[in-house]
Amino acid sequence: MNNNLLIVISGPSGAGKGTVIEALLKQIPELTFSVSATTRPPRPSEKEGSDYFFISKDQFEAWIEQQKFLEYAVVHGHYYGTLRHFVLEKLAEKKEIILDVDVQGGARIKQEFPDAVFIFLVSSTFHELKTRLINRRTENEAAIQERIEDAKEELRQMGKYDYIVVNEVLEETIKDMLAIIRAEKCRTTRKLREVQCALSAC
Amino acid sequence: MNNNLLIVISGPSGAGKGTVIEALLKQIPELTFSVSATTRPPRPSEKEGSDYFFISKDQFEAWIEQQKFLEYAVVHGHYYGTLRHFVLEKLAEKKEIILDVDVQGGARIKQEFPDAVFIFLVSSTFHELKTRLINRRTENEAAIQERIEDAKEELRQMGKYDYIVVNEVLEETIKDMLAIIRAEKCRTTRKLREVQCALSAC
Repeated sequence: MNNNLLIVISGPSGAGKGTVIEALLKQIPELTFSVSATTRPPRPSEKEGSDYFFISKDQFEAWIEQQKFLEYAVVHGHYYGTLRHFVLEKLAEKKEIILDVDVQGGARIKQEFPDAVFIFLVSSTFHELKTRLINRRTENEAAIQERIEDAKEELRQMGKYDYIVVNEVLEETIKDMLAIIRAEKCRTTRKLREVQCALSAC
Repeated sequence: MNNNLLIVISGPSGAGKGTVIEALLKQIPELTFSVSATTRPPRPSEKEGSDYFFISKDQFEAWIEQQKFLEYAVVHGHYYGTLRHFVLEKLAEKKEIILDVDVQGGARIKQEFPDAVFIFLVSSTFHELKTRLINRRTENEAAIQERIEDAKEELRQMGKYDYIVVNEVLEETIKDMLAIIRAEKCRTTRKLREVQCALSAC
């Protein structure tokens, strides 16, 4: 019986995921950040095991073979991956865990954890998207078509997530995130699991 | 484009629905209570149009014929019904609306408003249910079976709702309700509707 949340957060760069996650970690003591492994060299401010697990390319590729990653990606020539055992251990410790992954990573995590909470964070993009679409009649046909196609792709990606949070005022964004986390604990599927466990004596 | 919420709250009598709804109405200015029609005579404290619309049995039955009710029920020999035009008017005025109906009523409302937010409020019942099930081995076989059947029926009812809120400490219950309302406004289906409207120029 495991009713603590696995929270997946995705969104375009510049949406402010880092800042939002940092604020959440401060406000929710039982929330843990999923520390990824990477082959990128550490920046001066970054700490091993707290920001990332810094490993070699050979090591990373061996771990891919050994299926140690829930998901991984290559960004600017470096590997980044979510460690399966890290996530499972935190869940076993009854901790909530928050993951910062791209949309492909999110899709893979959904396969293994269909009950996870998927949040797509956007900044002004979301409103720009609307404005772009609303204003499309003032542009030439090719530009319009390109914008519509871009917008549709963005919508397709967002559509796979449970929630879309528009990060304009950080304080409001944090309130949205906290509300989502609190509300998700009242979700019927989660609440009933406790009772159904008792029913089937699990 | 109508993104304000229709909130349906159900639960056994004694769960505290009235108190919870009253507290919510105070805290959320844009929230309106769906005033039902009834054939029950008014109590001294009750006001026409604010607690109920008090109407005759003939009137109620005529309105049933005219499909003026989203749902109706008979309780202790009196009719109670949710007025379709009342709900639609409030939604058109961009108000959030909260309905207090039984589970049969909830099911009917779900048919017309699949996007509504369905909350099941329970008091200690929920924990008693667990305790009952957990302790079932200490009882005789017939009693055990009866309790399991009762519990299964309760679970079936609750299972149709989006959220289960356990009302033990009113203040926490209100926080749960406010979180659900805030989180639901971030639901992808609702957020995307705004953009998709722009996309299809609706």
